[in-house]
Formats: sequence, structure tokens, C-alpha cells
Amino acid sequence: MNTGELVELGQQLRVDSVRAAAAAGSGHPTSSMSAADLVAVLFAHHLRYDFARPDHPGNDRFVLSKGHATPLLYSAYKAAGAIDDAELLTFRKLGSRLEGHPTPQRLPWVETASGSLGQGLPIGVGIALAGKRLDHADYRVWVLCGDSELAEGSIWEAAEHAGYEHLDNLIAVVDVNRLGQRGPTRHGHDLDAYARRFKAFDWHVVELDDGHDVDAIDRAYAEAVSTTGQPTVILARTLKGKGVADTQDREGLHGKPLKNADEAIEELGGVRDLRVRVHEPPAVRDLRPVGDGGLELPRWEKGDPEKGVATRDAFGQALAALGTARGDVVALDGEVGDSTRAEFFAKEHPERYFECYIAEQQMIAAAVGVARRGWVPYASTFAAFLTRAYDFVRMASISGSGICLNGSHAGVAIGQDGPSQMGLEDLAMMRAVHGSTVLYPCDANQTAHLVAAMADLEGVRYLRTSRGESPVLYGPDEEFPVGGSKVLRSSAEDRLTVVAAGVTVAEALAAADILRQEGIPVRVIDLYSVKPVDRATLRQAAADTGCLLTVEDHRPEGGIGDAVLDAFTDGSPVPRLVRLAVRTMPGSATPAEQLHAAGIDAESIAASARLLVEQAIAP
Amino acid sequence: MNTGELVELGQQLRVDSVRAAAAAGSGHPTSSMSAADLVAVLFAHHLRYDFARPDHPGNDRFVLSKGHATPLLYSAYKAAGAIDDAELLTFRKLGSRLEGHPTPQRLPWVETASGSLGQGLPIGVGIALAGKRLDHADYRVWVLCGDSELAEGSIWEAAEHAGYEHLDNLIAVVDVNRLGQRGPTRHGHDLDAYARRFKAFDWHVVELDDGHDVDAIDRAYAEAVSTTGQPTVILARTLKGKGVADTQDREGLHGKPLKNADEAIEELGGVRDLRVRVHEPPAVRDLRPVGDGGLELPRWEKGDPEKGVATRDAFGQALAALGTARGDVVALDGEVGDSTRAEFFAKEHPERYFECYIAEQQMIAAAVGVARRGWVPYASTFAAFLTRAYDFVRMASISGSGICLNGSHAGVAIGQDGPSQMGLEDLAMMRAVHGSTVLYPCDANQTAHLVAAMADLEGVRYLRTSRGESPVLYGPDEEFPVGGSKVLRSSAEDRLTVVAAGVTVAEALAAADILRQEGIPVRVIDLYSVKPVDRATLRQAAADTGCLLTVEDHRPEGGIGDAVLDAFTDGSPVPRLVRLAVRTMPGSATPAEQLHAAGIDAESIAASARLLVEQAIAP
Repeated sequence: MNTGELVELGQQLRVDSVRAAAAAGSGHPTSSMSAADLVAVLFAHHLRYDFARPDHPGNDRFVLSKGHATPLLYSAYKAAGAIDDAELLTFRKLGSRLEGHPTPQRLPWVETASGSLGQGLPIGVGIALAGKRLDHADYRVWVLCGDSELAEGSIWEAAEHAGYEHLDNLIAVVDVNRLGQRGPTRHGHDLDAYARRFKAFDWHVVELDDGHDVDAIDRAYAEAVSTTGQPTVILARTLKGKGVADTQDREGLHGKPLKNADEAIEELGGVRDLRVRVHEPPAVRDLRPVGDGGLELPRWEKGDPEKGVATRDAFGQALAALGTARGDVVALDGEVGDSTRAEFFAKEHPERYFECYIAEQQMIAAAVGVARRGWVPYASTFAAFLTRAYDFVRMASISGSGICLNGSHAGVAIGQDGPSQMGLEDLAMMRAVHGSTVLYPCDANQTAHLVAAMADLEGVRYLRTSRGESPVLYGPDEEFPVGGSKVLRSSAEDRLTVVAAGVTVAEALAAADILRQEGIPVRVIDLYSVKPVDRATLRQAAADTGCLLTVEDHRPEGGIGDAVLDAFTDGSPVPRLVRLAVRTMPGSATPAEQLHAAGIDAESIAASARLLVEQAIAP
Repeated sequence: MNTGELVELGQQLRVDSVRAAAAAGSGHPTSSMSAADLVAVLFAHHLRYDFARPDHPGNDRFVLSKGHATPLLYSAYKAAGAIDDAELLTFRKLGSRLEGHPTPQRLPWVETASGSLGQGLPIGVGIALAGKRLDHADYRVWVLCGDSELAEGSIWEAAEHAGYEHLDNLIAVVDVNRLGQRGPTRHGHDLDAYARRFKAFDWHVVELDDGHDVDAIDRAYAEAVSTTGQPTVILARTLKGKGVADTQDREGLHGKPLKNADEAIEELGGVRDLRVRVHEPPAVRDLRPVGDGGLELPRWEKGDPEKGVATRDAFGQALAALGTARGDVVALDGEVGDSTRAEFFAKEHPERYFECYIAEQQMIAAAVGVARRGWVPYASTFAAFLTRAYDFVRMASISGSGICLNGSHAGVAIGQDGPSQMGLEDLAMMRAVHGSTVLYPCDANQTAHLVAAMADLEGVRYLRTSRGESPVLYGPDEEFPVGGSKVLRSSAEDRLTVVAAGVTVAEALAAADILRQEGIPVRVIDLYSVKPVDRATLRQAAADTGCLLTVEDHRPEGGIGDAVLDAFTDGSPVPRLVRLAVRTMPGSATPAEQLHAAGIDAESIAASARLLVEQAIAP
């Protein structure tokens, strides 16, 4: 397109943004109008993308980090012929694919759900990493950022990661329109302020003093494309609401349709129907590793070795084995791979291992990015520190992203390090994620099988592992279906059922032994699948024993105790329920002292069981 | 102290770090040894602190951001005479105040719990903000950071905030020892890499090529103290495990006691017992505002105005009124104050309002920082975006920090903006926080009363508010005790109980009206206090009606449905339970369409109630 056509295309994107928001009665036209020329030039001249084949491996990737600018995104889709005008005007309506903020669940051209600011760039870093290190393809990742979102720390985790990894296939375009939601941003139109920051993080920086000058934009993109060894950021000074005198560069108009849409459209030169021919992507050779296909999980014999095996060790070994069998498995860790045991994978498959340093948000974002490219990521850190990235996990579920997460060092059972290192809220956090799977193994063989099973599930999958050794309770050929459980003690005379998982399984078994000697037989269930739960087994236990005693190394809220209730919320009778969980603020102490102090050790279980059995007799 | 004495003091801190870790059998001596000289010079010459009066308003504040370096911290406490040698050797033992990572809950000189990296600096920013803008006192905030933690985005949120606010009372000291937990950091000993970054964020930077040269450290601190208009960062090149040939600058020794502690102590020159006289803090005038004391909450009459009032509006108005009555109330927001309505407070009390821009981690950290100085912070953003700061909320609970949080725009009821903006996991997240209070009002007067009540609670307090208007159900003089509930419909013939909160209360009442006309009387409970729950009322409802139907604008896990179970987990009989919650992935739609699609509107409640009543008759 020539200059005049590019200008016209930009105006068309503005007009269509105004029209879409007017039809919806809501949305963000002014945030779209500032970036219209940036997107027009990108789609017309630089993006290489086949809208008919969003899964084309040579496609560039366009990430809308400022996810509220959907009127612009969808107007660009229309200009590219991907959607028609009638669909554009369904924006934000029930059943429309064109949501207020974009999600790949509904639109195949969207790389990631955005709308929680500061996430598009880190996820773009993940896709760019996949391009460089996994796909070995030359696609570029274009990320359109807002200026407000540069206040998010996750942006600087991404900047650090991209600069350090020399991601010259990554181009961030910042729409510096000076105005956030509430008012002016910190740095207004001071491009230099942003330039200093990105340069410090080893980015190539292009400042565009007029982000509406289509020729200057064109040159900036060409410069970015030809830059090697560094990611590029284009800082474009723009005007929010550009092109309409009543809205341009004015406060108080964020997230609102234009008051006089018809007049604004006229001022913008009226409705157009330009089509943009987006460049075809280059052909790409598939260089993906395939793996040997024959999964040989690590094996342990029951009761062996004497001191047991830490489930984190089993995780690391199983993941390394899975990586051998499957070429699509990758691992990421937040600089604690020696603790989570992700280092076992790193040693065997360094080319598919990503050290994310202590930047959990970037780690999850990188996982989402590589998952988008069809890889199966396992991201690990301490369970406690996954809380750092909860918003990223939440957004991953909105993307429908298939990511496997591992939180190690769960619970008070870690011992001396104290509460800052203890994952005690992770089950609650992960259970509440839509479509998630939550697994909490108690022994090495169970862990290994679940690590392998996770790879084939959908959505967010979470595996909770433990620091200390646990006895090997199961043989290496036992199966552990997701959604299942194991009944470890059972008799026709069981007086109640103890439901445990992870470190509390051994405690529950010890308690059962104590109680049996006292003439109180109890059932013990290993609820390794916390979500989904094994309704049938829990309901049978309820019917047989009338009372469930849950015991968990987690806060009382949102964990195993609450999960068990899932089996009984269809209106059928509910058994008596008692929950043992961590109700105190732990300090430093040995693992055994911690379990005792929290009231979740064998002794505490036995004491509660006795009381409950007495209660049941009493009335 | 002269040079020789400072060197000796540094060696003593090393020796005591080695001894403490040896006695514990765990801990982080090598991470302590790198920073020993930095702390020795700080305590001997620059810190102004009265250990006998940790609440002295003139005290400088020392924040150990690298929270694992507790052997060093406690060794410094010993050198300052705050603890004795016998207590030092209780490190990491059951019942000791000297935990693996420090917490103010146990030690009065600790400003904040640390151990989740990247939090000390942002919380230090919060304390420095309090010094500048609230306390109007000249204390300095010294933050000792590790180099690994500079990978955390939260560090750069803090750097941005501190630079922008010209916090020259803030001094960050970075112990650049080159080695993280797993191995080398990204930038190793490249001080310039860090210097570029901090300079870009408008900090004064001092590079210390030898972070063990006590005279050079002394000069660096003097330069920092005399710097005005900017925060200062001192980048000190150090050696991990410094002073012991076997450990110095070596990988693989993170978080482990020294193998040969006795030999190491000998190499370090043996045990010493130097005392350091920390400078007294200056006298400080108390300039805190007092407020007029007469709380005049906003008032609405029942059923007025016709379209109702949004609870977010009531939040903003009540907070502004509370700020008038109480001089110790401050407000913070993440650049969405026009949406959360925190702007109502900002307009009336600009001197106590903190705009944190889109940096939720820094916002919570600032709240924790000002709370440490005795202020009562209310931090607000969309409920969805509080997930961004979950690790900070978790750590605040470990600190015992008294912070009030408000999450607006909760649930699918926001309508068109779609799932990225919908808080659907916030109740689960906040309920799992130890010692938290979780409140979810349904009308304006209830909101106002709860906003006021929050100020006097302990720990983390969370208020969930809604975007759209809700009917005014209660009069302005009604009381809403925390831990209570309201029975809105009740009769002796109630066939079941609907438990609702927030936006579903109106739906529950509408359903009750429908059902009554069908001859099915149902009880309706407004469970505005989600944690703690009103056990007595729920148990009475269970006894009277036999079945509870919970309905919530939240995921099924961890929210109101699970909270209700809290009333029945002491082993007593449990009623039948059915949970209506958001089980789908919402798209864009109107609020009413959203409630219907999620199955939590009046019609859905009525349909479920009919089924349950039939079931109860059937057998």
C-alpha cells in the first residue's frame, strides 16, 4: 500500500472501532484509535500470516497485550477478510466470538487471552522462545502493548528475559497514548523514560515521535525486522481517541463508546471497505523432535528404600523419562530446579529446558507461550511461589492453555524453613481455576504415573509434591487414573473413613494401625486426585461408615476437606465431616514437629477418630 | 568503630552465622557471609535504631529482603545486644523466635516477613512512602536485597515507584554475590548491568567493586544518606561464603550449613564477642492527623433509589467518610480508582491517597508498609487483579499485617467485559489466607457498615464489591456484625434454605417470591460474612429445612458453598447441600444474560429448589 492507502486503512480501523463500540454500547474505541495506524501498517506491510491457516507453523504471531483494544483487533480482522462487517457488529454480544477482551478459545487467530494487563508481552516472550529454541522457525512475534501496562513488574520480567535470551524475533510496539484508565500515566508522552528502561534491559529501541505517521511506522518496523541479536521495542507517541476532535487526547473517555458516533465517523471520513492483503507466511520445515515413544517411567518396589522416596524426586525422574519418550515435552523452572528436581530433566534434555530465574510470572507466561505452539510444558517451583503467578494461571485457563504445573515443598512438612516457603494455599488456588486438574501424590510410583498422565489432559494441571521422603506404598505397575483414589484400609466394620493425600497418607495409615489395636477399624482413602474427586469411592465410604475425617497439609479452606464435599453436593445425604488442616501459623521446627503442631499427624488423627466414634455412639 | 574493628565485626557476624546454622543443622550461612561486611558497617555507623523501642517513630527501618540470610540478621541482633548467644543457637528450632525466615509476628525488630524473594524492596517502598507522606519523619529505610531476586518483576515495580516518588529516604543495598540457589545468576558480578537498570528507573547508583571493603562501604552509605531527590541503590560485589576458602564463591553450597564448621570458624579467626552501639534515633514529633472522630457513614433508604446503588459506590463513599472520621485511614488503588470508586476518598483526602498505577504487587506491598507504621490501609482494584498479588497477600498474613483489601467488579455480573475482568476465584484465594476476614455485601448500607467495621479487625480483610446497581434492602441503621448473616425470608414451613451473598441475594429473593407463589416456602440467608460464617444461623436453617442451596457468583471451589460447610465440620449432622456457582467459561453478554447463563439467577435457583423439594418427598 502507498502512504495514502495506509492512512486510509488507519482511518477505516478507527471508523470500524467506533462502529463496533457503538453497536455494543460499550468497549474501548479511544484506546483503539491511538493504535490504528500502528496496526494498519503492521497488517499491510510486515505481518506474515495466513488467516485461513492460523496453525501454519510459519505464521508470525500477533499478541494484543493491551487486550481492551479489541475494537481495533476485530476491525483489523475485518480488513484482512477474516470476519465480515456483520460479525464485527456483534461485538460484546451474547454468543458472539468477538468478546470484550480476546480469547483463543473463541477466535483461532488470537494467541492468548489478554485483558489482565502486562501479560501479553511475557507470553509473547514465551512464543518467541519457542520459535528460537524449539520450533527453529523464523516467525516473528509482534506484541502491541499499552503504556499503562508498563507499570506491571511482569513487563520487566519479560524485558529481562527477552534481552538476556537475545530474542530478535520479538518486536514490542508500545502505543504511548499518555492516558490510562483513570488519567495520565506516570511518564505521559516522555518516550525517553521508556527508552532508557528498555535499553537498560538490552533491547533495541526505536522512538517514533509521531505514532500516526505511517511512513515513519513503516521504517520503524523495517528497522525492527532487520535488527539482530536483540529484541526491539518501538515506542510510538500517539493520541488516545486520535482523529476525532471531541475525543483526541482527552481524559475521562477510557472504555466508553463515543458520544456522537455518527459525527465522529463523518469526521474520520466515513465508512470504508478497504481490504488488506496480509503477506503469506514462509514455508517451514518441521524440525520438532519426536522422542523414542517408549515411556520407561522410573520404578520403585514397595517399601523400598527403607527411608522412602521424596515425591519431588519421583517428579524429576519421571519428567526426565517422559522427555525421552516424548519430544514435545519441555520443562521450565524458577531457579530452584535443584529443589524441585526439574534439574533431572535439564540434565537429560537441556535443549528443551528453560531456566526462568526467580520470575514466576514470566515462567508461567513462557509455559503458556510454548503451549500455544503445541508443546507440553511442565513449569515448576515451590508451591508457595506459584501464588506469585496466580493471575497468569487464571488467564491461562481463559486461554484454554494446556500447561502442567508442579509445586514442590508443599505444606508444613518442609520443616525448618518456615511459613514463607510452605505452600498452604495452593490447593485452594488451583482448585478454583476453571477446568483445572489437581493431583497430590503420596508416593514415588504414584507420582511418576501422574506426571505421565498430566501430559494428555487438557487445561491447567497441577501436581503438588513434597520435600521429604515418603514410604513407597504402591508397586510400580499400579494404575492411578485421574479422578480416582485408592482405598488403603477397608473392612466391613469400619467406623469412619480417613481421607488423606500426600504426606498425610502415611499419617493416616499409622493412625489406622493405632486405632485397629484399640478395636476401632477405620477406612483409609488416598485421595491423590483432588480435582476431580472420586465421587463413587467417597460415597461408598460415606454409606459404609457415616463419617469422613479429612486430613491435609493445607489451610482448612479450599483444599481436600472442601474437595470431598464435591462428592455430595447433588442433594443426596451428606455424611458427617470433620476436617483436620493447618489452622495455626507455623514457625520453624522439624517436619515431624510441624505435623504434630498442626494437628495432622497420626496421633492427631487417632485422637479425632476416637472422639468421632464416641460421638456416634453417644446419641 | 575504626577499620580494624569493622573488619572484626564482619568476621564475627560470619562466625555467628556459621555457628547458628551449624546448631540448627540447616539454614543459609553462605548467603549471610557475603553480606556480613555490609551489615556490620550499617549497624556500626549508619543505622539509627533503638532496639529497646522498636516502635520508636524516629527509628530507621531495616528490611531483610533476602529473607533467607537470617543467620546474618540474628548475628547482627546479637552484636547489637538485642538477643544473647544462647538464643542465637536456638535458630530454626521449635518454639524459637529465630525462624528460618524472619517474621515480625515473632521478632519486634523485623519490619516484614520475607523469604518470598522480591518483596522486601516493595514493602520498603511502602514504609518510605509512609515516612515521606504520612509520618513526615526523617527515618531512613534500608533494604538488603539479594542479586537473584532482582529477576522478580516486583523489584522493578518498586524501582519505578520509588524513583517516581523521589524516595531519598530509601536505600537499597544489593549483595551481588553472583550465585543464586541453583547456580550463577543471569548477570553474575556484572554490576554495570544492574546499575544501568536502576539508573533507568531514576535511582542514584553507587557501585562497590569490593563489597567487603569496610571503608568503601562506609563511604557508599554516607553518599547514600546525603543523596537527595532520589532513592539510592548500592551495588556491592561480594563473594558468597566469603572468608572460608572451602565455601567462598563456590556453587552448590546454597542453603546448607558449612561442612566443617569448626575449621571454618577457626579460619574466620574464631568466636568473638564484639558489641556494636547502634546510633539512637532522633526525637520525632507526632504529626499524624487525628480525624474528626464522628463517623458519618453515607445513608440510603430501603428501596431507594429505584434502580439501586452499586456496592462499589457505597464502598467509595463510606471510605471517604471513614477517612474524615479517622486520620489513620489511607487508601491505595491500582489506577482504577474511577472504577473501584476509591477516587471518592482521593478527592476528599488526597494527602492520604496513593496512586499505585497498574502494579498490584507494589500496591499490596505499599499497604503492608504503611500498615507497619500504624496506618490502616485500604487497597482496591478489580477482584480479578488481586490475583496478581496473591503471594504478597499470603506473606502479609505471615507478617500479621493489618491490611484492608477491596476487590470490585466481582463475578460474571460485570457483564460485557468478559472473563479476564471477572473476579471468580477471589473468595477461594482470600478464604485460604490464614486469619483472613472475607466480606461480600449485597447492598449499599451493608457495604458502608462493613467498610467501617474492617478498620478495627486484625489481619487481612477482604471486601468484595460489585459493578452494577443492587437494590437497597436494608435501612441505614441496621447492624452487620462480622461473622453474622441476615435471614431475609423465613417461616415455620420452609422447605429449604437458599444461602446467597452479594449479587445473588436479589436473585434468591426473587426466586423465593416465585416459589412462594407455587406453595414452596423457602428461607433466604444473606451470608455477607463469608469468613467467619454464621454457624448458628446456618445450623438452625439446616435443622429447620434439612437442605441448603448455596448460590454464588464465583467458581464452585472455595467460595460460599465451601464456606457454608464450615458450620458443619465438627462431626455433627450435615444437611443436604447443593451449590449453584459459575461452572462455565463466560463470554461477553449483559449482566442479566451472564447470571442466567451461569445458572445463578432467580430462575435457576427456583428450578433447583423445585427439584430438591421433590427429591425430599420422593423417598
